[in-house]
Amino acid sequence: MEKIKNIPTKIYISEEELPKKWYNLRADMKEKHDPFLNPETLEEVTKEDLTKVFCEELIEQELNQTDPYIDIPQGILDFYKMYRPSPLVRAYYLERYLDTPAEIYYKFEGNNTSGSHKLNSAVAQAYYAKKQGLTHLTTETGAGQWGTALAMACAFFGLDLDVFMVKVSSEQKPFRKELMRTYGARVTPSPSNKTNAGRAILKANPGTGGSLGCAISEAIEVATHNKNSRYVLGSVLDYVALHQSVIGIETQIALDKYGITPDIIIGCAGGGSNLSGLIAPFMGDKIKGKNDIRFIAVEPKSCPSLTRGKYAYDFGDAGKTTPLMRMYTLGCGFMPAPNHAGGLRYHGMSPLISKLYHDGYMEAIAVSQNEVFDYAVKFARTEGILPAPESAHAIYAAVQEALKCKEKKEKKVIVLGLTGTGYFDMTAYKQFNDKKLVNYDPIDEDLEKGFATIPDIPQNR
Amino acid sequence: MEKIKNIPTKIYISEEELPKKWYNLRADMKEKHDPFLNPETLEEVTKEDLTKVFCEELIEQELNQTDPYIDIPQGILDFYKMYRPSPLVRAYYLERYLDTPAEIYYKFEGNNTSGSHKLNSAVAQAYYAKKQGLTHLTTETGAGQWGTALAMACAFFGLDLDVFMVKVSSEQKPFRKELMRTYGARVTPSPSNKTNAGRAILKANPGTGGSLGCAISEAIEVATHNKNSRYVLGSVLDYVALHQSVIGIETQIALDKYGITPDIIIGCAGGGSNLSGLIAPFMGDKIKGKNDIRFIAVEPKSCPSLTRGKYAYDFGDAGKTTPLMRMYTLGCGFMPAPNHAGGLRYHGMSPLISKLYHDGYMEAIAVSQNEVFDYAVKFARTEGILPAPESAHAIYAAVQEALKCKEKKEKKVIVLGLTGTGYFDMTAYKQFNDKKLVNYDPIDEDLEKGFATIPDIPQNR
Repeated sequence: MEKIKNIPTKIYISEEELPKKWYNLRADMKEKHDPFLNPETLEEVTKEDLTKVFCEELIEQELNQTDPYIDIPQGILDFYKMYRPSPLVRAYYLERYLDTPAEIYYKFEGNNTSGSHKLNSAVAQAYYAKKQGLTHLTTETGAGQWGTALAMACAFFGLDLDVFMVKVSSEQKPFRKELMRTYGARVTPSPSNKTNAGRAILKANPGTGGSLGCAISEAIEVATHNKNSRYVLGSVLDYVALHQSVIGIETQIALDKYGITPDIIIGCAGGGSNLSGLIAPFMGDKIKGKNDIRFIAVEPKSCPSLTRGKYAYDFGDAGKTTPLMRMYTLGCGFMPAPNHAGGLRYHGMSPLISKLYHDGYMEAIAVSQNEVFDYAVKFARTEGILPAPESAHAIYAAVQEALKCKEKKEKKVIVLGLTGTGYFDMTAYKQFNDKKLVNYDPIDEDLEKGFATIPDIPQNR
Repeated sequence: MEKIKNIPTKIYISEEELPKKWYNLRADMKEKHDPFLNPETLEEVTKEDLTKVFCEELIEQELNQTDPYIDIPQGILDFYKMYRPSPLVRAYYLERYLDTPAEIYYKFEGNNTSGSHKLNSAVAQAYYAKKQGLTHLTTETGAGQWGTALAMACAFFGLDLDVFMVKVSSEQKPFRKELMRTYGARVTPSPSNKTNAGRAILKANPGTGGSLGCAISEAIEVATHNKNSRYVLGSVLDYVALHQSVIGIETQIALDKYGITPDIIIGCAGGGSNLSGLIAPFMGDKIKGKNDIRFIAVEPKSCPSLTRGKYAYDFGDAGKTTPLMRMYTLGCGFMPAPNHAGGLRYHGMSPLISKLYHDGYMEAIAVSQNEVFDYAVKFARTEGILPAPESAHAIYAAVQEALKCKEKKEKKVIVLGLTGTGYFDMTAYKQFNDKKLVNYDPIDEDLEKGFATIPDIPQNR
């Protein structure tokens, strides 16, 4: 307990220290990831291909491989000030519970009403849409964190929003849907009768609970049929990683301020939005030879894109409507089991994270959901915060590293990304509390079905 | 937008500035409120009467009318550091939406997993119970905020906890119940078969959904039948007001630091826990003639204890098991309509707040729930935080004052207590979003039934 008196539990940075620029990690990467391809021509996607679907300034950011720093506009900084800096907290009580010599820090992104880090990019995307004179946005949401964040941002900037929510999620999480409605968004369970894509899927599979892939197809269709509308996405893309770099920059500022040098940085990995943001400036330094930090991506065993996927060109959605991206993938037709970490149920991984992993800059592990919830509850009871199931993957991995430190009597500094809160995941916690939570760990045969949906194109270009 | 660049949106105090002492407002009151009475003898309640039910140190605090400052023990300060200081935020965006010259500030107590200010007293009560060598606590909860806060505190200090949750609430809010279970509490829907009180009520009313009064009776019965157990309460009592003074002290430190002088301080009022804490140091100064702040208590029209109640000795529970307290009351048998602000559905009001109101130190208003939700949603969309229905009562009143300022072209400084988040109130938001929310504004006849349950004893002593 002595240390608590010496070092603040929360490591503050002041409002004046808030980052004024995002960090574009890709600009500092020695090798860039492969370009997106037009699935029809197999040629590199051009800016023109993208303007019907995406906002112009976001496309500029997506294609920018040269500028390491990009100014954050004042309108976005003002919004960030409503909920940032997010706390960086020393997990004293968890350390004490584990009796480890390791120091564990968590960067907590759940202290805003949307409950997760997704808001960092949602506000940026809504801002640029407004600036471009658009009046309407569309998106898809699975677990609902991204949809909620975008609903908040659109309410603030006065934009209409259509959210296509995976039907089974909208039924399992009626309160998530209600939160988006409270922020003025129209939420449509997908597949719906509103789009050709939805109607076709409903005709083929009348009772389907939907999928993220189907919801993406519907959202893109609505956006491209309205000249004042665009489609926005909360993960996978490089511009999302750019916006999320605010997490890592704040973390680095705070650690530097207190003279703390991380040995290991850990984040959960679904589409890579949080992980890429958290590690960005540290990874940039590693590439430049300035540190030797271990980076660990943690994914669920039920959706193990990095640990068991193939590094290949694949579609971003099940409907096969997006450009092709070279990434670690389980196949665009892979159907993940109903693991409760809805934010980690994506068949692919951001091309940026995929490339870093492929080139050996980071590690990845996959874990089962019962062990994850076990430490989610222990974390809640010691540190006071109820973590999202997604975030709890990072907690679990951090605990494993801290226990290794205990065994080896080593004092390592571990930083983990705590992406959000679990308020809308109480059904999952109830199953765990009732000891009825099931692990979904696919065998090779399960994965083969997904791999068969990876398009058969020349992979090495 | 100019001001946003000049003044931080969030008004920070550092961890070093955290209060080290609570403020005991009662010590500075010129007239104290009337003492509690033993309902059988009508004599003043003694310390001995209370020790079977309450922890010793809490009784000392409850009966302390002389010391204005009481040290916060280190163990409680350490816990406070996990989530305090709570943010004091300038509501720029709400001001801009209202186009008012008024400055509105809110002290936000929802940034902890329990989601409300209740944790400030829960941690103190669990700490003192542990210090006394107790192993078990009991309490009741209605909306669930208090139960959740106490479950967090008991998990941290390693105490067993039994929560009696009003049956209808436990059915309407299964996720609240699950959050308490995640923190290790046993949650029993009340009335239950576990106690004589519960069994008697079930026999008399087989289909009853329960009431706070009944849950209190069950919790007290369990605590008094176990020598290692005590009953704890999250509102009404003076020791709760003492712990909650941390809210007001932090607010005063922050305002002083930035040279801001409040004209009006507004809080919602159920049992008075948040309101008494928020106003404490400012009211102390007002009593000493150092300021002329207007204090406004806001209650729901469905449960208007201050605005339409009687100032009388009454029981604290429907089961008539507690000491008699002189307070504003609608009668211990008053059954409030199912307003969604569950934390404001108490028939009485803390004797401390009642006395201040009776002596003219503060004002009170009552509002309907549709107008409250209207501004809850507007607040969510402008300031980004989804308020609890209880907290939204204070928002509504602050908006009314800000609009008066607009009319009169006056620049007043308004501070409001934002007690918590609305994550577990999405059923209510859904009703509002669907335009199906009902106002419950009782007519005099409805209130007469409650008044008839106030015990017939000499009221002026």
